[in-house]
Amino acid sequence: MRTLALIVEYDGTDYCGFQRQSGVPSVAFELERALALLLGHAVKLVAAGRTDAGVHATGQVVSFTTTSEFPIKRLPVAASALLRERRIAVLRAAERPAGFSARFDALARGYRYRILNRTAPSPLERLRVFHVSARLDLDAMRAAAALLAGTHDFTAFSALAPGNGHSVRTISNLSIAAADEHVELDVTADSFLHHMVRIVVGTLVEVARGKRTPADVAETLDSRQRERAGFTAPPHGLYLTKVHYAEPIEGASTVET
Amino acid sequence: MRTLALIVEYDGTDYCGFQRQSGVPSVAFELERALALLLGHAVKLVAAGRTDAGVHATGQVVSFTTTSEFPIKRLPVAASALLRERRIAVLRAAERPAGFSARFDALARGYRYRILNRTAPSPLERLRVFHVSARLDLDAMRAAAALLAGTHDFTAFSALAPGNGHSVRTISNLSIAAADEHVELDVTADSFLHHMVRIVVGTLVEVARGKRTPADVAETLDSRQRERAGFTAPPHGLYLTKVHYAEPIEGASTVET
Repeated sequence: MRTLALIVEYDGTDYCGFQRQSGVPSVAFELERALALLLGHAVKLVAAGRTDAGVHATGQVVSFTTTSEFPIKRLPVAASALLRERRIAVLRAAERPAGFSARFDALARGYRYRILNRTAPSPLERLRVFHVSARLDLDAMRAAAALLAGTHDFTAFSALAPGNGHSVRTISNLSIAAADEHVELDVTADSFLHHMVRIVVGTLVEVARGKRTPADVAETLDSRQRERAGFTAPPHGLYLTKVHYAEPIEGASTVET
Repeated sequence: MRTLALIVEYDGTDYCGFQRQSGVPSVAFELERALALLLGHAVKLVAAGRTDAGVHATGQVVSFTTTSEFPIKRLPVAASALLRERRIAVLRAAERPAGFSARFDALARGYRYRILNRTAPSPLERLRVFHVSARLDLDAMRAAAALLAGTHDFTAFSALAPGNGHSVRTISNLSIAAADEHVELDVTADSFLHHMVRIVVGTLVEVARGKRTPADVAETLDSRQRERAGFTAPPHGLYLTKVHYAEPIEGASTVET
């Protein structure tokens, strides 16, 4: 019995999210079906992040066990070929120690949120960026972001906060980069509450548009009230980009040798 | 009578190209129909570049005359809204002197060709990049590119070369940038022969894969024989990015003020 980990990219547009839900298309369903075909037995995946409907991934990590001898080096190309029309690709595959879990062994998750900030929408980046035509004050946005970094109770920034004391998370990085007409927010935390990245982004966009102040964001955090925070930014600007483990997942090389 | 110029972005995937062709969808047909609706009269566009089927644009320029008083500042947003489902957007609009032609007044055209160089394809960049899984030698590619820059008869790099003496073009820039898994070629010339950018890129990819040498590219150029050059790189990696004029087209601002 081998334990394998895969790094996976997908276009989340047509999926209900990563997790299986009966009667609707999910990334997990498609990936498990392709792996079962290659490995010759049913596969049950564990994923590092449960991305929502419409959310993309360039660095989702999944783990599973297999009795198959299928050569691990061929797994990315073979699985990607099977999943091509499903808009899913396996970027890397690596063997892990027995008992490894993509979910429970993850030390931190990194997400990127992409905003296109210009008057006109972009046909080429449709459903890949959140289009904001209003002018954004990035200095104010960064000042507010600095107040959210660190360890806090993020109940106010969650759609479904767990009970008292279970909504504390640590944002180890929240950086904002601007290039040409794009604004990109990179957020890393040990884990995230439901819709947390999107509510953080929606709130920071309201700051950048002058609709609230950085001080107001600090008060919102303290309030632990969802209705105090900003809107939930749309899913199509969000990407799960990187999952961090004690031992990085290297796997197959970037290009053929 | 006013003469207007527009900067246009489009996803070329579902079009036969920019130019109208009877019975098939074209960018010009959709754009002329939307403008006619806004301006109240038939519109005949002149375009800086006749992009082929599947080729994209982020900086196509078109010009036309109008008797309409439609406010030019509202044109980008109004036209983009009408064209949203057609995957076309008007980024900027500007008034030009009478007689201005987007085609004949263009001093140079700039194209970008985007390659994704890694083992796995990218679901998120499907039909946006040319996926090359083989390892690329960028030093060899740059050495060959340097031999193509400048003024030459590019008959060997054209699908439909005009008669003797009419295939001389000047490539003023041919640069190759690599970042992460992407390789981007930027090419600027006074104008281009049919399929010229894609044949140049295909030939340079063959150099980068070790299938031909820079010296062989110089000999190919001298031969003026299409069959000596490399393959025609696929259209979906190609973008018309910038058209240069004596007076730059500024138009509407990037974000609302």
